[in-house]
Amino acid sequence: MDDKQLQSLIEQMTLEEKVAQLLQLTPNFHECSDQEGQITGPMQELGITDHMVAASGSVLGLSGAEAVINIQNDYMKHSRLGIPLLFMADVVHGFKTIFPIPLAIGCSWDIELAEKSAEIAAREAAVSGVHVTFAPMVDLVRDPRWGRVMETTGEDPYLNSQFARAFVRGYQGVRLKEEHDRLAACVKHFAAYGAPEGGREYNTVDMSERQLRESYLPAYKAALDEGCEMVMSSFNTVDGIPATGNEKLLRGILRAEWNFDGVVISDWASIREMIAHGAARDDHEAAYRAIKAGVDIEMMTPCYVQHLPQLVASGLIDDKLIDEAVLRILRLKAKLDLFNHPLRAADPVRERDVVLCREHRQASYELAVKSCVLLKNDNVLPLHQAAKVALIGPFAQSDDILGWWSCEGKTEDAVKLGDALSARMQAGALKIIEGCGVHTIAEHVLEQSLEAARCADVIVLALGEESAMSGEGASRTDIRLPQAQLELIQRLKALGKPIAAVIFNGRPLDLHGVFDEADALLEAWFPGTEGGAAVADLLLGHVNPSGRLSMSFPQSVGQVPVYYNHFNTGRPFNSAKRGERYVSKYIDADHEPLLPFGYGLSYTSFDYSELSLSSSEITANQTLEVSVTVTNIGSRSGIETIQLYVRDISGEVVRPLRELKDFTKLELQPGESKVVTFQLTEEQLRYHHSDLRYTSDPGQFHILVGPNSCDTLTDSFKLV
Amino acid sequence: MDDKQLQSLIEQMTLEEKVAQLLQLTPNFHECSDQEGQITGPMQELGITDHMVAASGSVLGLSGAEAVINIQNDYMKHSRLGIPLLFMADVVHGFKTIFPIPLAIGCSWDIELAEKSAEIAAREAAVSGVHVTFAPMVDLVRDPRWGRVMETTGEDPYLNSQFARAFVRGYQGVRLKEEHDRLAACVKHFAAYGAPEGGREYNTVDMSERQLRESYLPAYKAALDEGCEMVMSSFNTVDGIPATGNEKLLRGILRAEWNFDGVVISDWASIREMIAHGAARDDHEAAYRAIKAGVDIEMMTPCYVQHLPQLVASGLIDDKLIDEAVLRILRLKAKLDLFNHPLRAADPVRERDVVLCREHRQASYELAVKSCVLLKNDNVLPLHQAAKVALIGPFAQSDDILGWWSCEGKTEDAVKLGDALSARMQAGALKIIEGCGVHTIAEHVLEQSLEAARCADVIVLALGEESAMSGEGASRTDIRLPQAQLELIQRLKALGKPIAAVIFNGRPLDLHGVFDEADALLEAWFPGTEGGAAVADLLLGHVNPSGRLSMSFPQSVGQVPVYYNHFNTGRPFNSAKRGERYVSKYIDADHEPLLPFGYGLSYTSFDYSELSLSSSEITANQTLEVSVTVTNIGSRSGIETIQLYVRDISGEVVRPLRELKDFTKLELQPGESKVVTFQLTEEQLRYHHSDLRYTSDPGQFHILVGPNSCDTLTDSFKLV
Repeated sequence: MDDKQLQSLIEQMTLEEKVAQLLQLTPNFHECSDQEGQITGPMQELGITDHMVAASGSVLGLSGAEAVINIQNDYMKHSRLGIPLLFMADVVHGFKTIFPIPLAIGCSWDIELAEKSAEIAAREAAVSGVHVTFAPMVDLVRDPRWGRVMETTGEDPYLNSQFARAFVRGYQGVRLKEEHDRLAACVKHFAAYGAPEGGREYNTVDMSERQLRESYLPAYKAALDEGCEMVMSSFNTVDGIPATGNEKLLRGILRAEWNFDGVVISDWASIREMIAHGAARDDHEAAYRAIKAGVDIEMMTPCYVQHLPQLVASGLIDDKLIDEAVLRILRLKAKLDLFNHPLRAADPVRERDVVLCREHRQASYELAVKSCVLLKNDNVLPLHQAAKVALIGPFAQSDDILGWWSCEGKTEDAVKLGDALSARMQAGALKIIEGCGVHTIAEHVLEQSLEAARCADVIVLALGEESAMSGEGASRTDIRLPQAQLELIQRLKALGKPIAAVIFNGRPLDLHGVFDEADALLEAWFPGTEGGAAVADLLLGHVNPSGRLSMSFPQSVGQVPVYYNHFNTGRPFNSAKRGERYVSKYIDADHEPLLPFGYGLSYTSFDYSELSLSSSEITANQTLEVSVTVTNIGSRSGIETIQLYVRDISGEVVRPLRELKDFTKLELQPGESKVVTFQLTEEQLRYHHSDLRYTSDPGQFHILVGPNSCDTLTDSFKLV
Repeated sequence: MDDKQLQSLIEQMTLEEKVAQLLQLTPNFHECSDQEGQITGPMQELGITDHMVAASGSVLGLSGAEAVINIQNDYMKHSRLGIPLLFMADVVHGFKTIFPIPLAIGCSWDIELAEKSAEIAAREAAVSGVHVTFAPMVDLVRDPRWGRVMETTGEDPYLNSQFARAFVRGYQGVRLKEEHDRLAACVKHFAAYGAPEGGREYNTVDMSERQLRESYLPAYKAALDEGCEMVMSSFNTVDGIPATGNEKLLRGILRAEWNFDGVVISDWASIREMIAHGAARDDHEAAYRAIKAGVDIEMMTPCYVQHLPQLVASGLIDDKLIDEAVLRILRLKAKLDLFNHPLRAADPVRERDVVLCREHRQASYELAVKSCVLLKNDNVLPLHQAAKVALIGPFAQSDDILGWWSCEGKTEDAVKLGDALSARMQAGALKIIEGCGVHTIAEHVLEQSLEAARCADVIVLALGEESAMSGEGASRTDIRLPQAQLELIQRLKALGKPIAAVIFNGRPLDLHGVFDEADALLEAWFPGTEGGAAVADLLLGHVNPSGRLSMSFPQSVGQVPVYYNHFNTGRPFNSAKRGERYVSKYIDADHEPLLPFGYGLSYTSFDYSELSLSSSEITANQTLEVSVTVTNIGSRSGIETIQLYVRDISGEVVRPLRELKDFTKLELQPGESKVVTFQLTEEQLRYHHSDLRYTSDPGQFHILVGPNSCDTLTDSFKLV
């Protein structure tokens, strides 16, 4: 159907039918809806009628080909105008084949694999009946206390934007209508949900508009530039107004400035939650503010269905606003080919072949390998082939390694670390003991661990957070490993044996109690379905770690927020003069993060040399070529992520100490050298000025190239 | 001299002489300046000439009548046009008689005593030759990590504004020209210096302009409304531009909107520091931005004297800007009567009588008594008259109780707690042992403490931070008591004796390790010269504690920022449903602060009843009367601070859960009851809308009255 056909369809709709299109409910409403017109439990609670449910435009959270087919077929039977239902779900890092959490994917710096992960997730979800995924989440985050930090790719606007684009490409493909194995993507949470005060879930967000545009908006914009079909409004306020009722944000920036013409959906209940926010007196005003702001679909609250008809009747809301919203929703259904194929790819037979197939698991394995970050290694890893290993800790044989938002992923499908190591090691070489729980430690289990450790050549500790300790609604004030695990480490440390620790977790942690104590430390995040296999291969050296942190690790929670692209301040800390009082620092902690953005080790070493610029000056029309020679000076092949940062020395407003502008991944054999060349143009030097103009200034810039955001070679040039 | 005379004086000045008026240096420059025109050490370093020093307009940091008289007399001898030098100093919480730190004064909620403290500080400083104080500091602070939190009165815009006005009245009096015992005040740090990211000194400040205007600017404005003569620009950026070069802030808000026509001074070196900020390429551009922004006096860097002449010559800067700045400075000198009395109140003979006189010490004592906050008391305080007391801890006999910014205060003038208790108790009833250092603990000293404690009926612990652990350049990531003191508590706790702890500190602390362990806890802050006497009298019950927290105490640093006037969010935490996941909370800590804003105990108890409003509706022209009955239901007289909060239920932008609108202090005898009546008008209901309009909205409001921001009686009314 083209827009004209859709328009004429809309003309045939009653106002109630239109408004019902704007309602999104969970499938249980469809189950409790009946033909007698009775109002049952959840419906009664929400105050909606059977009629509204029967005409509602979309469903969230249902998957499984059979279930979807049943509901869609039933729905179509009763649909007066033959408008199909739209099925949406939280397919965030895989569907049944679970990939590493997005924060881990961020640490892969592997854009192609990230795209592939989304493509696979789409394929599995589509065949199970899903049409739209509530992903990618591209919120920039600087505070590891926030639980949903696991769901972002990190702290950098550029890197997040690259991943945002990759995920959209992966989910949507290029011909959404024809490729039924693809999903429409919904970028979220618009906007700045990742900056809640104190890292506390759903908390107030406040920042200057310049900061919003400079750091927080680029990744949403990148997703839309890639053609992302939908946008979800966030729970938080943006400059004092809940995003869901924020006209400046949604109609202003999103629609007028960026020309976004797709569907905007509220987050779960976020229209009604404007009342709790204190930005609406009641459902009526909440509906008014949301539709005026530009929200098309209301998720799980009845403000629209109950109040839009009256708002239109009273003239407070122009019915054109309703028609526009309906058109956008119907257009999405048409783009998904649902008018012709209401079931799209849903297919119970294919579902069994596609979901969790070998190819998908292999992709998950590859991404897990690339996502793990080697944080420390004092000659312990990889494990010696002949070594006797004691694998100890709550994650030694845990299947809680999928992470939050694992959608249809089942922990029983996860490969556990202990099993994977067992399968790869000689009989008798591996002893596995839980040692302690995530939060509890018992003396008799501890004794077993100590006994096992005493007989081993090396201790591998598998530690971490339960997956429920991150994700939505899981902010922490204390971001250390739980006390029980710190005690386990201390007790084992006393044995004097080499310790390699692997941590499974959803946020950058305060590594006190493990970083200094362990001889090697591998950050595994929640690595997904093939996590145990990937980690085992990394520990054994079958593959070489290559992940790089996409978020800084603080010294402690008292140092938060700490991020690499901060400003210099007027009194920068000088590490050569640690005793100075009147500089920007803490008196009781290091100034720098424990581990900087971009950081990660390998089993080989790389040398950087001969940084050279094609010119010491460029004009706005010229391209600067930045070259550097990278050499593998170790004894095995490895993948290096070469990072290009720029510092604008002086601006109309202050400029970050360094900003990632480009990067490339390179595999080098031992002794091999390659010259890497980056292209830099004036466009990459632009920033938001005090009047929000996005332009560059002539002047001096530093170029910094290296393996992470701290250890860089430096040169400079002028933009003239 | 009137403006006309000053104008004609300016006409006689060379450009170099004008620019020199804009330079402020420390007195050592005047000492190293000589008549031979040589450039010595510090001058060479700064690149300024003897000539510039000789003509410079003001001096900072010198006091002492004799020294000031010498420099002024010498200066006037060489002053071609007879323009006197202006002497400024950091007189922050007292001059030689030191009052409690401002954060403590904030906890007194005693506006009259606060004013008196400033008046006394002015009298002592004036007679010692000072003309201007760099006070009051009125920065709103929500992050206890920041070291300068000791220098603010707290987290509330209204309370801070009341204190800002009181300090200005106290310093300046009403006739600055005639009252030579007064100082001109300089409100600082404009603007929002109290909101550095991560609580890290000098760090970036970023917030919406609405937030800036709603919460951070009111106290500066209040000081200016009270007639404050000067403003100091802050070190931080405001929306990306250092305050010192921020034209929108200084010429826009301060001068154009608020009509401030007094002198603006940079903070120490903050003009040159624009280079480090990355907002100026060099001194030349820094001078350009600062003078354009509206900074009149440059403190301690030579950008103005070295570059303004050329900036004027090249036409980049209109010489009118220079003349205006000079006029403002000369006008201040005239207001201070310096053209007639260049020595003003400086008088070495009076100085000896005035400084640290009995009256001043008595005022300091009274304010210290009012500033201490009783945080907990399980029937331990006041100490029984016959009790044997072991006073233990690093502050038992410490004179480090003046706090940072004690100006000319000498620790040897401070009354120590141990001495004060000794003087008040029967011989043999008190045993004093240091127990441990602030940071160190030695087993043999600990043994002595345990021994003393075993023989005592009650243990009084005197704990805290060194004064150097707060103040400028003293941000902490860990805001607990130092480990040595926590260990001391644990060891003493094991004895099972009652413990009353007194803490001396400069910030709200994480009280883990002392709050639960002690049976009583008295927050003494840094109480000033008479601190020991005040605390001793409070412990012994000679006076009744009445202080109330002007800043929330967090559960831990991981909960920061936590402040009472926050927003509700869309998913507020409900204490009745602690298990709910999807609400705004942390999974590992309480939602509420440990101790809320306004909190404080007494040795008696008060009951609140019969909250009543004069009407359930008011119009914009009407006044609402809010009455409440307060009764002393305990057995001794006490002072209660009755607090009135308002909540605007729904706004165009979200509104705080409660906002302090008024308060009153009341002394009640046992059994006595009084009715307190507050007047509330529409003006107090205004707030900054999304377009920055400062107006009220008709609608529902809650009235909350009680002894702190949490325990309140509630009623509601409508603004129609």
